[in-house]
Amino acid sequence: MPMLSLEIDSATPLIEQITSAIKKMIDDRGLRAGVGMPSIRKFAQEHGISRFTVVQAYDRLVAMGYLQSRKGSGFYVAPRPRTETSMDSTCQPDSAVDVVWLLRKSLEDRSSKTMPGAWWLPASWMEETGIRKSMRTLALKSGEFLTAYGTPSGYLPLRELLQSKLAGIGIAADTSQIILTAGVTHAMDLVTRHLVRAGDAVLVDDPGYFILFGGLKSFGAKVIGVPWNQDGPDTHAMEALIREHKPKVFFTNTILHNPTGASISQPVAYRVLQLAEKYDLTLVEDDIYGDFHPAAATRLATLDQLNRVIYVSSFSKSVSASLRVGYFACSREMAANLCDVKLLTGLTTSEVSERLMYQLLTDGHYRKHLDKLRAKLTQARQRTIVKLEKLGFTIHCEPEGGMFIWAKPGDSANSAEMAIAAAKTGIMLAPGNMFRPNQEASPWLRFNVAHCDDEATFEFFSG
Amino acid sequence: MPMLSLEIDSATPLIEQITSAIKKMIDDRGLRAGVGMPSIRKFAQEHGISRFTVVQAYDRLVAMGYLQSRKGSGFYVAPRPRTETSMDSTCQPDSAVDVVWLLRKSLEDRSSKTMPGAWWLPASWMEETGIRKSMRTLALKSGEFLTAYGTPSGYLPLRELLQSKLAGIGIAADTSQIILTAGVTHAMDLVTRHLVRAGDAVLVDDPGYFILFGGLKSFGAKVIGVPWNQDGPDTHAMEALIREHKPKVFFTNTILHNPTGASISQPVAYRVLQLAEKYDLTLVEDDIYGDFHPAAATRLATLDQLNRVIYVSSFSKSVSASLRVGYFACSREMAANLCDVKLLTGLTTSEVSERLMYQLLTDGHYRKHLDKLRAKLTQARQRTIVKLEKLGFTIHCEPEGGMFIWAKPGDSANSAEMAIAAAKTGIMLAPGNMFRPNQEASPWLRFNVAHCDDEATFEFFSG
Repeated sequence: MPMLSLEIDSATPLIEQITSAIKKMIDDRGLRAGVGMPSIRKFAQEHGISRFTVVQAYDRLVAMGYLQSRKGSGFYVAPRPRTETSMDSTCQPDSAVDVVWLLRKSLEDRSSKTMPGAWWLPASWMEETGIRKSMRTLALKSGEFLTAYGTPSGYLPLRELLQSKLAGIGIAADTSQIILTAGVTHAMDLVTRHLVRAGDAVLVDDPGYFILFGGLKSFGAKVIGVPWNQDGPDTHAMEALIREHKPKVFFTNTILHNPTGASISQPVAYRVLQLAEKYDLTLVEDDIYGDFHPAAATRLATLDQLNRVIYVSSFSKSVSASLRVGYFACSREMAANLCDVKLLTGLTTSEVSERLMYQLLTDGHYRKHLDKLRAKLTQARQRTIVKLEKLGFTIHCEPEGGMFIWAKPGDSANSAEMAIAAAKTGIMLAPGNMFRPNQEASPWLRFNVAHCDDEATFEFFSG
Repeated sequence: MPMLSLEIDSATPLIEQITSAIKKMIDDRGLRAGVGMPSIRKFAQEHGISRFTVVQAYDRLVAMGYLQSRKGSGFYVAPRPRTETSMDSTCQPDSAVDVVWLLRKSLEDRSSKTMPGAWWLPASWMEETGIRKSMRTLALKSGEFLTAYGTPSGYLPLRELLQSKLAGIGIAADTSQIILTAGVTHAMDLVTRHLVRAGDAVLVDDPGYFILFGGLKSFGAKVIGVPWNQDGPDTHAMEALIREHKPKVFFTNTILHNPTGASISQPVAYRVLQLAEKYDLTLVEDDIYGDFHPAAATRLATLDQLNRVIYVSSFSKSVSASLRVGYFACSREMAANLCDVKLLTGLTTSEVSERLMYQLLTDGHYRKHLDKLRAKLTQARQRTIVKLEKLGFTIHCEPEGGMFIWAKPGDSANSAEMAIAAAKTGIMLAPGNMFRPNQEASPWLRFNVAHCDDEATFEFFSG
């Protein structure tokens, strides 16, 4: 449990301060059911208060149903009075909830913090002016699109634009193969709904995109991590895991991978596809960071031409996460099936948002905006690497682009503990355990270079 | 199989016309795998063509993998080369797909049709001017909201507004109990994800909201219909079904119910809540049409105060379906859990959309807009009822508001067959079987009174 900041001189009695702070942590799921509380002696010592105060606070929390006292072994966080959920035994709601708790916190309190652990670019780097301009343009237009349901696949001109975009990276798809979604997470959830059922094993990157892990677990899937090297998934491990767990789907983030920043190499991509062919696996290629890559990158979908690859991406990282515009491309058959799932689980996506995005992408500024972003990111990456190396960090690899650096401090620390300590000084880190399928301990941290200009971050590590 | 419209004089050979028409029907899932084709003799006779032509067309379709020939029993639609899906045995993908096919068709080809079966108001009745005005206003504002992820629960000022709106109908909720979604279907899907698992029985209205049925079935749930009377669910049947199937959730649309237009009465609402209490059921109250009700209506959530009721609604019917803004309200505990599911399956909703909606709702025109809508709907209802009664239709009940009339023709026809015949003349009807949990035959049709000014509809029935 993290230290509480108690005010000895406050008008609020200490017992009350302790009670309400712990209550809040439990409500917010910062403390999970079953977790052991510090002993009364230890708690009193650490906070410099009397044992009597701690006893009273703990007793009050027991009375309120927040803690349980177990004879001879101390106090534990009581099970929460949750509505009965439908989680399968294969599902691990606790760890899913831990991650979602972190996620919720990072989305809720953003303003006053230093956030090297953020997973977005600063607002000032994004396309605010472009969106406002698109809005003004769209406001001049009259039409059904402002009030009516959109079409099932999404706004056609945007899909046509995506068709050219995909052609530009060597993926041939007609518009019937391209379906708009409310972002990459939505797209991957549709795939989950269609191809996965409770109890199924699913392969993911380890480390990888933790929201996906949470979504899969809340669905009752068994989430199996394939170790990620500097050139993509470890294909030896992948084959062994396929033989052991018989998964049907592998979700992988191939370019400027979150969190390591590494990209898949051609031979590894080829080997992944061979394995998918051999064991009849569907590959879901998350390419959300691809636009940040400065040169020609290797994509599974380019090699395979959407035969067994479902390609997903969005504009949330480079244009706006607020508009919620993403997409997927896959075989015609799969696209029709996934589009049905989209309709049945949420009807159409917002044509207003899709038209705003289309307007912005076609007004000629997007390419320039991307060029500027790439240049800024390159400089920020270099600055951050220099600072981290000066502090004795090991860098996993020097990424070819994008916003992430994966690094670990010289002493083999536990990154989760570091993140808790940093949070107390107002710094939000992204500890390595977050990115592991079962939150296994990790010495690594993910740094978002666009949020690393605040010296407080580096002072924290040097101090 | 419906009649094909063949052109004897066309440059395209008859065989080709037949082949491509049937191929299209199978691709579009208008003809399902396993369905028997008309015999060669019957097909030839009905279309006034030679048997030889039919034999050749069928043979070609067999060669293309669209039909199968079974010795001695004729031709059948071949199984489609679907990607293996994860449907449970409890799930009935075929009927789910049928409904989604209808849904897809109605969203795709809208422009040139007469649509008394539509489930939306004409664009000209909606708040287009308001949205354009909101867009202009929002385009003047600068801020992170244009590009950043929103907060997990959604735009706070809109939730505060909803808090007052709920208070206005007697539902006390603080903002932590109100979560924004991308519409009612999205909200109900989150509930499904959280409370239902494959194989579970779920109660729904019969007749009721068919997209919900499809969503539940695609999830592997057993969808059980509770007969809907003129004053709400049949609570005797409800209790018997609860005893038999042991469901945990009942989704019901209480006010100006889709498709019948009826509203729940106070005693029935009380009885439904009693049963929910007795058998520990969660009630999901879909109140999407409530704003169209002219007077004080009875709501489960008002009686129960969000204890075991999850209240869901949206602005898709009265303001804009394109913005995708809906919400749910429930207990604090349930709201936190459902918000987690929202994040894990799609991150945040669009704050741009939410602010556009907020702007529109607070600029003072919404109440006037609603008054106007209600008045127009009342007139349209009266006109439609007169026309239908003149044609000998039986009206299920005279709704107190809203856009739907549930009616059946004098002769006990099959509404699905009527819908197929009407479609050929460019009229989209909503046949009763669509609204039944397993598409059971029904003589009823749902009329959207706002789309009933085109005489073609009534000429179709009188002809």
